[in-house]
Amino acid sequence: MERLKATYLIETPHNVEKAAAVLAGEQSSGTFVAVPGETDELKARFAARVEQIERLDEVPEPSLPGERVGNSAFTRARVTVSWSIENFGFNVPALMSTIQGNLYELRQFTGLKLDDFELPESYADHFKGPAFGLAGTKKLAGVEAGRPMIGTIIKPSVGLTPEYTADLVKTLAETGIDFVKDDELMTSTANSPFAVRVEKIMAVINDFAQKTGKKVMYAFNITGDLDTMKANYETVLNAGGMCAMVSINSVGWTGVKSICDWGALSIHGHRNGWGMLNRHPLLGINFPAYSKLWRLAGVDQLHVNGIKNKFWESDDSVVRSIKACLTPFLNNDAILPVVSSGQWGGQAFETYARTQTTELLYMAGGGIMAHPSGPEGGVRALRQAWTGAVDGYTLEETAAMYQEFGESVEKFGKGG
Amino acid sequence: MERLKATYLIETPHNVEKAAAVLAGEQSSGTFVAVPGETDELKARFAARVEQIERLDEVPEPSLPGERVGNSAFTRARVTVSWSIENFGFNVPALMSTIQGNLYELRQFTGLKLDDFELPESYADHFKGPAFGLAGTKKLAGVEAGRPMIGTIIKPSVGLTPEYTADLVKTLAETGIDFVKDDELMTSTANSPFAVRVEKIMAVINDFAQKTGKKVMYAFNITGDLDTMKANYETVLNAGGMCAMVSINSVGWTGVKSICDWGALSIHGHRNGWGMLNRHPLLGINFPAYSKLWRLAGVDQLHVNGIKNKFWESDDSVVRSIKACLTPFLNNDAILPVVSSGQWGGQAFETYARTQTTELLYMAGGGIMAHPSGPEGGVRALRQAWTGAVDGYTLEETAAMYQEFGESVEKFGKGG
Repeated sequence: MERLKATYLIETPHNVEKAAAVLAGEQSSGTFVAVPGETDELKARFAARVEQIERLDEVPEPSLPGERVGNSAFTRARVTVSWSIENFGFNVPALMSTIQGNLYELRQFTGLKLDDFELPESYADHFKGPAFGLAGTKKLAGVEAGRPMIGTIIKPSVGLTPEYTADLVKTLAETGIDFVKDDELMTSTANSPFAVRVEKIMAVINDFAQKTGKKVMYAFNITGDLDTMKANYETVLNAGGMCAMVSINSVGWTGVKSICDWGALSIHGHRNGWGMLNRHPLLGINFPAYSKLWRLAGVDQLHVNGIKNKFWESDDSVVRSIKACLTPFLNNDAILPVVSSGQWGGQAFETYARTQTTELLYMAGGGIMAHPSGPEGGVRALRQAWTGAVDGYTLEETAAMYQEFGESVEKFGKGG
Repeated sequence: MERLKATYLIETPHNVEKAAAVLAGEQSSGTFVAVPGETDELKARFAARVEQIERLDEVPEPSLPGERVGNSAFTRARVTVSWSIENFGFNVPALMSTIQGNLYELRQFTGLKLDDFELPESYADHFKGPAFGLAGTKKLAGVEAGRPMIGTIIKPSVGLTPEYTADLVKTLAETGIDFVKDDELMTSTANSPFAVRVEKIMAVINDFAQKTGKKVMYAFNITGDLDTMKANYETVLNAGGMCAMVSINSVGWTGVKSICDWGALSIHGHRNGWGMLNRHPLLGINFPAYSKLWRLAGVDQLHVNGIKNKFWESDDSVVRSIKACLTPFLNNDAILPVVSSGQWGGQAFETYARTQTTELLYMAGGGIMAHPSGPEGGVRALRQAWTGAVDGYTLEETAAMYQEFGESVEKFGKGG
């Protein structure tokens, strides 16, 4: 029978083999005393199995509150466990409860992080994956191969009126920008009701598209309960929009799945709350596993933070996340990595050097809006940075070659 | 204008006032440079506001990866921040993205945990809350006031056939048990399809109810995508069931809200995955805030772990969680605290001493099934433990007074 394999980073004061056995036992039998009815045959069919254990380092103090065993050190290891898919079939929330769930509660571990998982091919028959994915989203936005989509976020996050926002979008469209998004804090506010904002913004976008042939992709934040999201989705679609943004952690997997199933808009997955799930090195979930769950739901675009971001996340984690988005999964080639947070173009060089790709959405907020030559200069600078990076020039060389990027370096590059 | 207040436990190497201002700024303006359009008037209306700062201790090392400021110590504090509800209205996922969201990403903090939040009264007009809650669920299960509901979990978690499970439920019904549940790992498996399991189990339960007047509440695990949950919900309802269980973290807020809105079954909220959100003392969310989010969704019953549980959670956290469930919130008096994990009756004494309540669902797995006198003895022992505790006797006195509880102490009490 086909099996799901999940890999964890663990830390334990116990013998690693015994701890791994507890992990497998909790997630397939799950009680503290032997009970009748648990036959050997049944165990063989449904029990989780420890597939591999790779010992890593030892540390003197535990990473999380848990058990101590005398003066034992705490051993870290990479552990792979497998389950028959007979246990949960093609039910992803049940799968999540199996490979995550109570595992984090086990006192035998002083660290436990789900790193990645692999599904049998049969999953491809039950999950059609993202309706657009990377290629479909770029095509929808009319962005040619060989360069990233360039985007920005409306700031301040909340407070602007629909009219002011639409004016801003007009300014941005005229810069040649590919993508604009609501902030994750902005859904429907007292002075910017969702439907009014969509109407005003899409009037500008549709008008600009008619004049120039360039239709800016705007990610409207449809986040809400299911009825709200459905109504918002239809509002966007009816107005000629191409994209909806969802705060995936706040909405949750089943709600996001329902939205993605509608299939008419590219879904921009905003992962705010990610730090709660990932910030501790030995608790929660890493991006390879996390992104697969959302690809099963059908998300087309997923945030990955950015190189030298303003947040805590390391560049290594960002690079790994971009690569995860670009790795085929089931019948989907790639989803669009959304690079943002403190970006101004200066990071294009390292981003390209470490990922060798232009297949991403590269977003700057202040980096565009606060550019010395205005938003148009900001967008031009971002494109110049990527051209320079792809052509093999350094940041300094590119700054010398292109005026607007040179101005960006002057203004934003001094701390970087 | 009405405001939402959220309280956090934070840790920072910075001046606490400055760090709190960053927190408030990120969650209402959210960019790293000043931008046009952010007027003073707009800020006054939509900006988050730091309401209170209470300094706690200082520590030499950071709890989470983040910024260092020279050799500065890391200050811990309790910080209250408020937002106008104009920012998000009555949209709970947007509220979650506001009070959690990117906050966990801020490198200015080496610890950040949402502890609790308070909503304005107007929320009561938009959220009807749990359809049954504590009182409604106990009434539905026919459990009189003054004693806890007694329940158990079918074990092993996965692998049993519907026939075997139904036989087990028959045995359990005959013990006088109030409540039985699927394990969170058990949804629909190769050898126990959901609809068949419901049919077999409800036949037993309905039959027993007809004979005795006592209808056992069974929590069928309907967890899945929205279509699956809707179909499963209807299956349970049509078979005469009274309760559905949902793995709330795996399903997510909007999916759970949709289910609770159907309103015909008491919803048993299983919080597997909780450790991921809570195990680190300074990352994630504490139960008072967590439980309010699920009460807004309409969950009737919520897991709280148990005293001296087999997991990592402290007794203090368990007691605080029980009290949170029993505290009125908006127009709902209380939801049912679900006490479980390694329970066998011995913990009834401390549970009662510390909470002074019998208004809970007290669940034992092995504590019932592996009782020396069989499941009937196990259930009787649990009731005896609670009677003893409420009547003011000690564990030892109660063990001496009641045979079955005495046997429990013999078998399970030696390690406790």
